[in-house]
Amino acid sequence: MRPVYIAGGAHTPYIGKFHPDFIWKGHPDFGARVNPDTEAYIRRVVPDALAAAGGDGTAVDKAYIANFAGGMFDNQAHLGPFLAAADRGLRGKPAMRIEGACASGGLAMSAGVDAIRAGADVVLVVGAEVQTTRNAKDGADFLARASHYKRQRGLDPFTFPALLARRVKMAVEAGELTMDDLAHASVKAYGNANKNPNAHMRAVEMTYERASTPSKANPVFLTNPELRPYLRVSDCSQVSDGASAIVLASAEGLARLGKQKSDTVEILACAVSCAPIDEDSSGVDLDNIHTAVTRAYAEADIGPDAVQVAEVHDCFTVAEVLMYEAIGIADKGAGARFLRDGHAAIDGKVPVNTGGGLVGFGHPVGATGVKQALEIFRQMKGLCGAYQMPNAPGVGLSANMGGDDRTAVVSVYRDAG
Amino acid sequence: MRPVYIAGGAHTPYIGKFHPDFIWKGHPDFGARVNPDTEAYIRRVVPDALAAAGGDGTAVDKAYIANFAGGMFDNQAHLGPFLAAADRGLRGKPAMRIEGACASGGLAMSAGVDAIRAGADVVLVVGAEVQTTRNAKDGADFLARASHYKRQRGLDPFTFPALLARRVKMAVEAGELTMDDLAHASVKAYGNANKNPNAHMRAVEMTYERASTPSKANPVFLTNPELRPYLRVSDCSQVSDGASAIVLASAEGLARLGKQKSDTVEILACAVSCAPIDEDSSGVDLDNIHTAVTRAYAEADIGPDAVQVAEVHDCFTVAEVLMYEAIGIADKGAGARFLRDGHAAIDGKVPVNTGGGLVGFGHPVGATGVKQALEIFRQMKGLCGAYQMPNAPGVGLSANMGGDDRTAVVSVYRDAG
Repeated sequence: MRPVYIAGGAHTPYIGKFHPDFIWKGHPDFGARVNPDTEAYIRRVVPDALAAAGGDGTAVDKAYIANFAGGMFDNQAHLGPFLAAADRGLRGKPAMRIEGACASGGLAMSAGVDAIRAGADVVLVVGAEVQTTRNAKDGADFLARASHYKRQRGLDPFTFPALLARRVKMAVEAGELTMDDLAHASVKAYGNANKNPNAHMRAVEMTYERASTPSKANPVFLTNPELRPYLRVSDCSQVSDGASAIVLASAEGLARLGKQKSDTVEILACAVSCAPIDEDSSGVDLDNIHTAVTRAYAEADIGPDAVQVAEVHDCFTVAEVLMYEAIGIADKGAGARFLRDGHAAIDGKVPVNTGGGLVGFGHPVGATGVKQALEIFRQMKGLCGAYQMPNAPGVGLSANMGGDDRTAVVSVYRDAG
Repeated sequence: MRPVYIAGGAHTPYIGKFHPDFIWKGHPDFGARVNPDTEAYIRRVVPDALAAAGGDGTAVDKAYIANFAGGMFDNQAHLGPFLAAADRGLRGKPAMRIEGACASGGLAMSAGVDAIRAGADVVLVVGAEVQTTRNAKDGADFLARASHYKRQRGLDPFTFPALLARRVKMAVEAGELTMDDLAHASVKAYGNANKNPNAHMRAVEMTYERASTPSKANPVFLTNPELRPYLRVSDCSQVSDGASAIVLASAEGLARLGKQKSDTVEILACAVSCAPIDEDSSGVDLDNIHTAVTRAYAEADIGPDAVQVAEVHDCFTVAEVLMYEAIGIADKGAGARFLRDGHAAIDGKVPVNTGGGLVGFGHPVGATGVKQALEIFRQMKGLCGAYQMPNAPGVGLSANMGGDDRTAVVSVYRDAG
């Protein structure tokens, strides 16, 4: 199979509630300025990513855009032709939108990897989402379309938080973790985000006291009485707007872009697994993620011991802890311990979500899987500034999840430098 | 590049208003039965397609599902995991949704072709859509999300009909076609559909008198006064529910399925082109379709003279006529003449849309591009029953369009039998 390299990429800032640049009624520019729409994010991230990779639209053979809910939040689907509008060099090029809920970005990258393996030399992969146009209640209903809506919508007005709170409840009852452990996960996420200028929560401080104690500033909010105690606002990923994009290339594509292999990161594996939508996981574990992880390690011919940095899908703090176990950097049942011992911190054994993850960096749904890949690239290339790992990692892994472990995309990366 | 074969596939019936099985307040089963939802269509078409191709889910390496607006019409996005629910053999397999408005199906097939070329051996491509859950006004607003919404939504409450009526107006004013020509296109579409048991309009007769004369039974309906005269209901594709699926395979995949090459149709080319969403075509022609056509012919190493059957995207009758010109079976400006001379009829020079096209067979948006490929396969294999061409064709072409010529997918097929 042809090797696939990441030649570069770009993030826009991720913004939303509590971000200093987010326009809401308390912002001094309220009424004078509006937040960017999906098109604006695409127009910003596409040229930035292409420039970072050493080219422009004319260099690109195919393009993909990951987006979950543009048709609902922003009245706009059919986003392929927005790429050609963002760089006229893309006019007449193949482009399409890929959707798999919160795994849309990972899926788009997997389509890009297939395109390179099928003969394309330069592929643009964009993820973009705008979600702040509607109130939380409407937004939760839109997001519930990533679950089995007719079966699961009734669980709670906030369907996804409830689905993940169910995993918290199971894990707590099984003695595998405590609500205090999850508070630590939140503190780590916000702490990392505070060092990341692109992070949604870059300006919000999260103390252990605040994260661990439900309060007016950090309420529990589920209606379902059984699940309500198992999730605080601080445990949740953010409703963010933003975009990320990466440029993939074959060896021939790197020559076209004027890049050396040493400028790049190789994607050793990109494994996708889908579980049936009409079933739930039998227990607390992320079984479907684990299926993709197993396949990715086999394809990359490495094991979890080789992983030096990871981006995992912490849609809720519990998912981060369960991900440690699913990807094998912690033993089954030992994820919380791994976290408490600081192994996932930036200076830990296997730094996880160094830029803040979905809880701290933010979660513009379609962008997230693309962002994960770019964050691994940026750590490997020493581009992370205040949140740069002391020693740039050589091997990394990302795990992107759609729905409640229904779509999984797990990728393994190696610095080619 | 590895050859890609279509090993088989299946349609559900396409239904909606005026179809005898469509449940509405005038139907005897109204109140006792409801129309199938997206999930029901997927559960029906997936096993049928796999059985037709000689396998089941266990044989499949990757799967794609084309769908435009499930999140809006049917409260359901994230359709990849619905495939695993439709055939447990697909559990753990990669699957994703592809969206490019009305070209979603063609795009999903192009992703499937890439997957085979990248190393997969058996790939399932499904298209499914449900649109009859909402009234025409809401539906038109959802469909407008395939246009450049913020720029074009104001054109008319029925945005897409207005965009295509604009092409009719230009073509009529340029003397390239008449409203009577378009009536002939409608009569052909319904006539073909009347012979097709899966067609939405199988039971509706369309006479030239009815199609050519606006009336209470066949009204003009646009609000925009300049465009209003240029579109009658009989010129429009249908708001349909339905699904189609095909199974693609490499030569190795055919062995896995127990199929001979002679059972299959080879996809010689599958070309995609996107035009910028913020521009409109400069004139009446389908320029972006033509870009993809040119690329597809070059890839397949044939020209328009070789085409013996075509499926073209007649979202409105004008598009069918313009497609004749864009794909080169008629000269520029001679599309209407080609139609009037009967060359596109089932017994004509190049039969087009033999099962009724989007106007007669119906247009469940995400399914359409997949349906086109399967219809070419079925004509080549002599499976079309009452609408079978007298001599099964050896070479065919499909042209699938998203938005007003913003996404184009053009494929060329050759009977491998």
